[in-house]
Amino acid sequence: MSTLQLLSTNFCHGGEVRKYSHMSDTISGTLADSAGEGPSKMQFNVFVPPAALAGKKVPVPGHLPGRAHLQRGHRLPQGVRPAEGPGRAWDRVRRARHLPRGLAPVEGDRDNWDLGVGAGFYVDATVAKWVAGGYKMFSYVNHELPAVLGQLDILNGKMSIMGHSMGGHGALISALKNPGAFQSVSAFAPICHPTQCPWGKKGFGAYLGSEDQAAWAAYDATLLASAYQHPESGARLPMLVDQGEEDNFLKAGQLLPEALQKAVAAGTPAAEHIDATIRLHPRYDHSYYFIQSFAEEHVAFHAKHLGC
Amino acid sequence: MSTLQLLSTNFCHGGEVRKYSHMSDTISGTLADSAGEGPSKMQFNVFVPPAALAGKKVPVPGHLPGRAHLQRGHRLPQGVRPAEGPGRAWDRVRRARHLPRGLAPVEGDRDNWDLGVGAGFYVDATVAKWVAGGYKMFSYVNHELPAVLGQLDILNGKMSIMGHSMGGHGALISALKNPGAFQSVSAFAPICHPTQCPWGKKGFGAYLGSEDQAAWAAYDATLLASAYQHPESGARLPMLVDQGEEDNFLKAGQLLPEALQKAVAAGTPAAEHIDATIRLHPRYDHSYYFIQSFAEEHVAFHAKHLGC
Repeated sequence: MSTLQLLSTNFCHGGEVRKYSHMSDTISGTLADSAGEGPSKMQFNVFVPPAALAGKKVPVPGHLPGRAHLQRGHRLPQGVRPAEGPGRAWDRVRRARHLPRGLAPVEGDRDNWDLGVGAGFYVDATVAKWVAGGYKMFSYVNHELPAVLGQLDILNGKMSIMGHSMGGHGALISALKNPGAFQSVSAFAPICHPTQCPWGKKGFGAYLGSEDQAAWAAYDATLLASAYQHPESGARLPMLVDQGEEDNFLKAGQLLPEALQKAVAAGTPAAEHIDATIRLHPRYDHSYYFIQSFAEEHVAFHAKHLGC
Repeated sequence: MSTLQLLSTNFCHGGEVRKYSHMSDTISGTLADSAGEGPSKMQFNVFVPPAALAGKKVPVPGHLPGRAHLQRGHRLPQGVRPAEGPGRAWDRVRRARHLPRGLAPVEGDRDNWDLGVGAGFYVDATVAKWVAGGYKMFSYVNHELPAVLGQLDILNGKMSIMGHSMGGHGALISALKNPGAFQSVSAFAPICHPTQCPWGKKGFGAYLGSEDQAAWAAYDATLLASAYQHPESGARLPMLVDQGEEDNFLKAGQLLPEALQKAVAAGTPAAEHIDATIRLHPRYDHSYYFIQSFAEEHVAFHAKHLGC
């Protein structure tokens, strides 16, 4: 496991927002600048709260961004200058968060906004060309990243996870595939049933192969929820999902919260293992304005279950 | 006064974030696409809170962005696509907030990051080439914009003003040059004494001419504060200024809060007319992380003085 490199620190709310990079053991593949294989550079942000700065060990509620916020046109990292050439600037944005850097591009990875760079769907690809491109975000998020964070020496071992849209899907499957690993899970407008929506069918078909329905099911929150068994007898996984009713992706049948709701409804076997609250909010859409409106409640939800 | 055009609406915190544009009577000059003179298109955002949606008239605390956040490399409006050509995309960003659109570029307006597009210093230029370029942001913010906002028919007439960095300077001079117009004023890391800092000398020299020291003084918060007279007998202008001690622009002598502090300190004539709180915060820098850490306190400060 490679050493963390601190890229920047900004003091914020009495704590520190730190940006780190490291060379990944998990996200590796064909290198862009040689014929060989090797690791990709990965980058993430951590907020170190005042208590951790004072030496106290703290829990970590992780957040996975969605596809739209990994891609072009949304945010540029500070300091990117047009003088470098727009291609480079855009390329940086698109690869800035959680996708491979330093690896050779996969054929077609930039041809679709819902596939490839920025849309890894938090799965471990099994189709050769995506494997070579380092598309193993499930393992990265669930195994390597927690270990890498351990290097910071500020964590008390308790984790929870949340995310938005594709990142909400990533959060749900992380908690549902790793019973007991996360104290709680929440999502803003997640892709709840990817095996049954156009985005999921396209992404899973590409990364996992169009024939392998069992592999698809293993990354579908609704199907995983139905079979979920909580490891602690009598306890349940706390789950909070918020969804805006004016979300165009909801209307287009990409998110399908009703499927997840049905899977965990009172009286189902899943309800004995998952304590789910799924809320629909009139007038809200899919944007950051929606996320920011409910972010404080999600943080409070996780804080409660993390024992803060 | 031209009609407001609604560009987008996002539901947020129970209210609406609306983006508007209009053709400005104030920001006008040589048109880019003809030999004539004419108005520039201006753009701004408004948050319409739940009470206003329900028909109640509300006050408005305005916010003026700083130079860095008006310029390249910080934020792109959602929906800008690289396919349009990076030049156009960047150009939109740089002109998106409060600078002329549709006017001919001023010679040299893009050669310096601290002068020209994105760095209008919230003054009314008197030097011919900048006048022709529509550099009249003081009049726009203080006269045209409040009138334009009146078209929304949601305001109760009470206003306050805040801003960051160059926008903090804009907020301070707006309140100090218009006694009684604003119920309160606040600023994050403002340029407090522009006639005595490198940025101010360069900007004022360009827009107002290097010879006209009286014109410079009329846009300097520290000098204006010394001479400020509150119109209401016995009342004072509430002022809140926050500044991070690790702000590189503070260290470079661009912000000079100590000059403003001295001008309004207890025992000065200004202290009888201005109720100022100027706070220095260890470890904070000039970034959005600093702003977000104290934004809630500023909003509460204005809410109190606006009678919310």
